[in-house]
Amino acid sequence: MSETAVTFAKENGKRFVEELKSFLRIPSISTDPERAADVRRAAEFVADELRRIGMENVRLLETSTSETVYAPSSGPAQVVAARNGHPLVYADHMHAVPVNGKPATTVLLYGHYDVQPAEPMEEWKSPPFEPSERDGNLYARGAVDDKGQMWMHVKALESLLATGGGRLPVNIRVIVEGEEEVGGEGIAAFVREHPEQLRADVALVSDSEMFAPDLPTLCVGLRGMIYTEIEARGARSDLHSGMYGGAAPNPFVALAQIIAQLKDATGRILIPHFYDRLCAPSDAELAAWKALPFDEEVYRETEVGSTVLTGEPGFSVLERTWARPTLDVHGIAGGFTGAGAKTVIPARALAKVSMRLVPKMTTAESFALYKDYVEAICPAGITLDVRLIHSGDPVVVSTDNPYVRAATSAMYKVFGKETVFVRGGGSIPIVGDFIRELGIPTLLMGFGLPDDNLHAPNEKFHLANFHRGIESIVLFLGSAAEV
Amino acid sequence: MSETAVTFAKENGKRFVEELKSFLRIPSISTDPERAADVRRAAEFVADELRRIGMENVRLLETSTSETVYAPSSGPAQVVAARNGHPLVYADHMHAVPVNGKPATTVLLYGHYDVQPAEPMEEWKSPPFEPSERDGNLYARGAVDDKGQMWMHVKALESLLATGGGRLPVNIRVIVEGEEEVGGEGIAAFVREHPEQLRADVALVSDSEMFAPDLPTLCVGLRGMIYTEIEARGARSDLHSGMYGGAAPNPFVALAQIIAQLKDATGRILIPHFYDRLCAPSDAELAAWKALPFDEEVYRETEVGSTVLTGEPGFSVLERTWARPTLDVHGIAGGFTGAGAKTVIPARALAKVSMRLVPKMTTAESFALYKDYVEAICPAGITLDVRLIHSGDPVVVSTDNPYVRAATSAMYKVFGKETVFVRGGGSIPIVGDFIRELGIPTLLMGFGLPDDNLHAPNEKFHLANFHRGIESIVLFLGSAAEV
Repeated sequence: MSETAVTFAKENGKRFVEELKSFLRIPSISTDPERAADVRRAAEFVADELRRIGMENVRLLETSTSETVYAPSSGPAQVVAARNGHPLVYADHMHAVPVNGKPATTVLLYGHYDVQPAEPMEEWKSPPFEPSERDGNLYARGAVDDKGQMWMHVKALESLLATGGGRLPVNIRVIVEGEEEVGGEGIAAFVREHPEQLRADVALVSDSEMFAPDLPTLCVGLRGMIYTEIEARGARSDLHSGMYGGAAPNPFVALAQIIAQLKDATGRILIPHFYDRLCAPSDAELAAWKALPFDEEVYRETEVGSTVLTGEPGFSVLERTWARPTLDVHGIAGGFTGAGAKTVIPARALAKVSMRLVPKMTTAESFALYKDYVEAICPAGITLDVRLIHSGDPVVVSTDNPYVRAATSAMYKVFGKETVFVRGGGSIPIVGDFIRELGIPTLLMGFGLPDDNLHAPNEKFHLANFHRGIESIVLFLGSAAEV
Repeated sequence: MSETAVTFAKENGKRFVEELKSFLRIPSISTDPERAADVRRAAEFVADELRRIGMENVRLLETSTSETVYAPSSGPAQVVAARNGHPLVYADHMHAVPVNGKPATTVLLYGHYDVQPAEPMEEWKSPPFEPSERDGNLYARGAVDDKGQMWMHVKALESLLATGGGRLPVNIRVIVEGEEEVGGEGIAAFVREHPEQLRADVALVSDSEMFAPDLPTLCVGLRGMIYTEIEARGARSDLHSGMYGGAAPNPFVALAQIIAQLKDATGRILIPHFYDRLCAPSDAELAAWKALPFDEEVYRETEVGSTVLTGEPGFSVLERTWARPTLDVHGIAGGFTGAGAKTVIPARALAKVSMRLVPKMTTAESFALYKDYVEAICPAGITLDVRLIHSGDPVVVSTDNPYVRAATSAMYKVFGKETVFVRGGGSIPIVGDFIRELGIPTLLMGFGLPDDNLHAPNEKFHLANFHRGIESIVLFLGSAAEV
């Protein structure tokens, strides 16, 4: 059954890519309130296709979420409570026959149809929402994160249904969200409130990357994250730096002083007790990472492009990005940043600061430690508002699991190579939700590449991996039936 | 002659205000390239009026200047060399008769017709370019800085010409610039290259404020300034903070670390040798400042509105803002500052940082010390470009001068009070140019008030001061003839 489905996928590969292009043309930027209609259009696009290929109970599930909007200059931040969220797309197909007398396996497929903003627009070689094929890659915002990878799931299901007489080897539930890039509040609430609707034996997520081209990869650990805003207020209104410089507090200087005290020059975070619960990787895991094909100098040169790499001494790049907490500043709003000179001491400024967490740190405790510390080091004359924008707990997935073996076996057939186990530095909060609320493991079987420019201009998906991903998923679902 | 001119000014005061409103409706924002045509229109408005009232040799003098444009995201800053600058307006009237056998006095009147940007727009109670009278004040961008105060000069000349049969008590040269808010490169070059065209005995500038309502004020010292940009570059392109956090340098963190090392928690600047040339005010000057009607707590409450005032311990607010160097950050560009969360490590970020200088610090040496220090403390993995955007030397004007006595005598007649001598914390670079290139003193006779919201929303001019300013200038020009 799986082999004929693989043949079907090969024969229809070009059509699959054309369909994906139509999907990528929808600018479903979840963080942009003006794109709400486009985000919904993307949800409907997914639902329509799930219906067309023969999935059942296809529907949009509405969500609600809260949002804080920051006015770019002085004046209070506005909290828009309980705005409508972006809908979830649900579908299922629950007619798999028992195998060897055991109830049929149920697999939960997860993906997201929303994308990051495309800015800075001028750096895209082709427009972000006009997909363009070049050198075997498909360029577009969302090509790999996650529309393209989610589309692999849909096309694997289509290949199986079309060649299996409308039957699937396992029961399938599909849940696709539209708020992954803005914190995923809606799906988190749904998983918490309706776990029975997502009951399954294992979840499959394709929102990660392969460690190297041609190297099948399962990601078995993810960092968590807390994304925060620090708003600093000084004078009542904007003041002239000539007249008031020397007397009025400067919110930018205050934020700089705070940020400079959040981590030291090596990158070690200075928040008291921040590292207390940290659980280091095992010696076996560290040894396996050392064996991976990874050259820090090549990584610096080709991926980062900075003069040197930064981070804590005594830890390798893989340890620093997979298994150490880190802190970054993403932007600082307020004041004057146009061309020329405006001599303003702004009334307020706002910094966007996030931290990555590793097992077994928790988001709630980490944020509390951070907030207490930031407030304790607040400079004179400044009042602060320290807010949590969103968060996700870190996770580790056990490799001692028959579904992991089913996945590695499927990928061996497609790639001809043994799977490597890695971690990811990023955060996929839903994986923690599946563990906590559904009690099921998640397989992070991703087919992106390290140079796919996630969240950056010129995002792409290597099309060979799109096709191999579909075939791997087809074979995995076939093997999962035997577990 | 002066008394009839004062009567004329009183009788025509309402018309003068209406004319000023027409002038204020022109959004002559010199820093905004899209407003270049409006800036020129403002120059022509001034020239037309100078012609109408009977001034001679009225003309626009073209300037050129260089400009650096900062692209908001990564990609190189663009240097637009030698763009056309905003024109100077020149006029003169050189027919004054000798008094007591001495050649007639020549007075150079200076003002500027350009204005600051109006942002944040939403905080204006009436639109910035639709002048609105409320409670005896005229609200508009440029009302007091400097269109309204420059208009006093024009209207004083009109009053004298109209009542003096086309004669003036002194020779007059008028020079009005359109680049004061963007560094005044054009006029600086003109003064340097054509000092003979501006030859005079004394300059009068009305671009400062009164120390308190009803208290005639001459400003006899100004801080200088260097306005800089620090551009920090890390990775080649924007990166995902999950995948690269712990390895990629963060330009925002780097800028924060640099800024936090520029001054200590009390505001003392940490750049080595920055204070070496500083010349403190005399004991007599400090004693006079102590006698001024000034309450630091009222100032904090009504003008600044912060929880506490900041600045170096051991110095009063007036010392800190008039006679101590200070450092401020005006904005930090780059990265993501919209609503929501984008987990980007930006490739670059840019901070706008300025320092105020006091006698006898120099801009060239101060910038060199700053640049060397910033480059020395640059964090690992970051490359910096430290640029000077514009600058002005600090100045002190001697009070031992017959024109100062003419000015205080004129203001005594209008206000019935003795003039106080103060300094200004801001910078008027042209005053230094007049001293250096023309060898003449400048009288800073301003009629703004401390709460006039210069460079901020709801800028205003107290109309009583507009009228008293015209009368004071009329009487000063009459007295200056006797010097």
